[in-house]
Amino acid sequence: MTVAPERGDRLASLVEDNGLGLLLVTKLVNVRYLCGFSGTNGVCLVGPRTRVLVTDFRYTERASEEARGWEVVQGQRDLLGDVARLAVERHDGSPLRLGFDDDDLSVRRHQRLLSLLGDDVELVPEGGLVEQLRAVKDDGELRLIREAAAIANDLYVWLIEEHGLAGHTERDVARALERRAQDGGADDVSFPPIVAAGANGAQPHASIRDVEIERGTLVVVDLGCLLDGYCSDCTRTFATGSVDGESREVYELVRRAQAAGVDAIRAGAGRQAVDAAARDEIERAGQGDHFGHGTGHGVGLEVHEEPRLGPGAEGTLAARNVVTVEPGVYLPGRFGVRIEDLVVVTEGGCETLTTVSKELIEVK
Amino acid sequence: MTVAPERGDRLASLVEDNGLGLLLVTKLVNVRYLCGFSGTNGVCLVGPRTRVLVTDFRYTERASEEARGWEVVQGQRDLLGDVARLAVERHDGSPLRLGFDDDDLSVRRHQRLLSLLGDDVELVPEGGLVEQLRAVKDDGELRLIREAAAIANDLYVWLIEEHGLAGHTERDVARALERRAQDGGADDVSFPPIVAAGANGAQPHASIRDVEIERGTLVVVDLGCLLDGYCSDCTRTFATGSVDGESREVYELVRRAQAAGVDAIRAGAGRQAVDAAARDEIERAGQGDHFGHGTGHGVGLEVHEEPRLGPGAEGTLAARNVVTVEPGVYLPGRFGVRIEDLVVVTEGGCETLTTVSKELIEVK
Repeated sequence: MTVAPERGDRLASLVEDNGLGLLLVTKLVNVRYLCGFSGTNGVCLVGPRTRVLVTDFRYTERASEEARGWEVVQGQRDLLGDVARLAVERHDGSPLRLGFDDDDLSVRRHQRLLSLLGDDVELVPEGGLVEQLRAVKDDGELRLIREAAAIANDLYVWLIEEHGLAGHTERDVARALERRAQDGGADDVSFPPIVAAGANGAQPHASIRDVEIERGTLVVVDLGCLLDGYCSDCTRTFATGSVDGESREVYELVRRAQAAGVDAIRAGAGRQAVDAAARDEIERAGQGDHFGHGTGHGVGLEVHEEPRLGPGAEGTLAARNVVTVEPGVYLPGRFGVRIEDLVVVTEGGCETLTTVSKELIEVK
Repeated sequence: MTVAPERGDRLASLVEDNGLGLLLVTKLVNVRYLCGFSGTNGVCLVGPRTRVLVTDFRYTERASEEARGWEVVQGQRDLLGDVARLAVERHDGSPLRLGFDDDDLSVRRHQRLLSLLGDDVELVPEGGLVEQLRAVKDDGELRLIREAAAIANDLYVWLIEEHGLAGHTERDVARALERRAQDGGADDVSFPPIVAAGANGAQPHASIRDVEIERGTLVVVDLGCLLDGYCSDCTRTFATGSVDGESREVYELVRRAQAAGVDAIRAGAGRQAVDAAARDEIERAGQGDHFGHGTGHGVGLEVHEEPRLGPGAEGTLAARNVVTVEPGVYLPGRFGVRIEDLVVVTEGGCETLTTVSKELIEVK
């Protein structure tokens, strides 16, 4: 995807608003967001008149192709020496406040950068500025996320109607889904799919097993697709044949909680309030102790990003946020249920990108 | 793989040798190395009598299964509050020197940890201790790396003899290799394979294209397999039919340089000397400017780890290091050649795990 130059402009405004002369962007996914660079070593320097991408020998050619409108500088491997030199060169001579991402830069790299900079440069911890921009998606981003979600929807339909679960190992199902995602137009899956049957489904982030899925059990299937860098994310819990009353009861509880979460979403809604809407349902049923994660998270270039929806989350949702709504109930040693939709926040509510049925489906 | 308890013991010795009371291990791959934990959120605390793994709700069940012999503590999401509490609890009451990985811990997390600890705890930057252990592989690790390399060897044979290159897109070849790796017994590839034809091969870390590979060109194929967490890494450059004299000349140059690098490897050899052995060949041919990366790197739980073999590398190789030897020559806009073997360092030389021919092979 070609990156709109407005991203650099918007960040430059935030840099000024925060009283900084320049911002050093070190987290790779933020670099990619800003200028489109897809290599594994690169940093950006951004200020009112500065749009510089520094990368090493391996990536300068790719950087020049991808980062249109940005000045590409070939630096030495750790790039910090070049950053120190450029920060001073590109500034106007007055004392410089150089912001950096304190949530990304390691203590060692910070020390090294400090040692390279003169006394007239102040390093200012200022993480989260690019994440703030990334949380609100533009049209191009929404198009990719919608498409990635649509491919994932088709995967679930294929899994339900054609491939099936029982008799396959968890790993075989996950691999079949990965390949189908690629063949269905995705660049890849957005994370290794979770396919977790029976007691394995009671681990919210289960690891995949070479174990055959049995009949008459619940199976959590959590997967997303990747398209031009953008992720989707979805979870459904299926039954492989008839399951007992308690399983159905927990399933319906999670389904109600998930619907309550989706209902609470709109621009301006408190992030904590959205979490509480889902959580209250589960707590009222006495299962609060079995729902130990947040109700949702942002999705974009990363499959987990801002805004988070959890008990301690501050702030409100904004239009064009893309978030998951995914409460779950996990009964250790027995089974788990999670239902997850991906939604785009709108002024009056949300657009749900996940179209797979939320009835408890019996899959062969 | 079950992790030998000696790893924790060896680290505890290093912790004492470095005058620390406890070491906080935050980098996930180091946590995995020490105790076998494979989740995405966990830290270890290690000292003479301390083997603690702290993780969150999502992973406590998995942690208890994987980290045999370790005390598993369920912490809150960022785990640092628990670390601060445990560090004081597990220490003997005297002022504590608590080591941390300054190459991994972010400035923000470091600040937060500082604010949680009392005055009688000193945070000491001490990165690289676990990496030091990881660089020397034990028998179980060597077995996995050998097996991962053997699967990759078979992939190249299959590519050469059955699948072919010309007429397929780079992406299709890469996907076919990924699937063949999985079907051949690997858990996965160890990184997205590079398949880079013609001018794309002149980018040392080329990105994959949806472009058909032509006849009569050079194609760089860089891939590795993943087995129970351990990586292999290999590169070969093929010709799709007859190529011109300059291409053959550069190929033979890189082949000589690669052989010189392998010849220089043995326990006690300087890392810089190994790099120089390969680099000198390329510089003597006047192509020094077209070889911009190091000659090799360690391979294990990460596909790039210690020890590095490059112009500025300090120290010597040790028996049971596993390293790549991979010089390359890249002619921008035209073509590139890289040849990479994976070797195990021995007292008298090395054991080469890569068995694919280094002749310039014409692949259909």
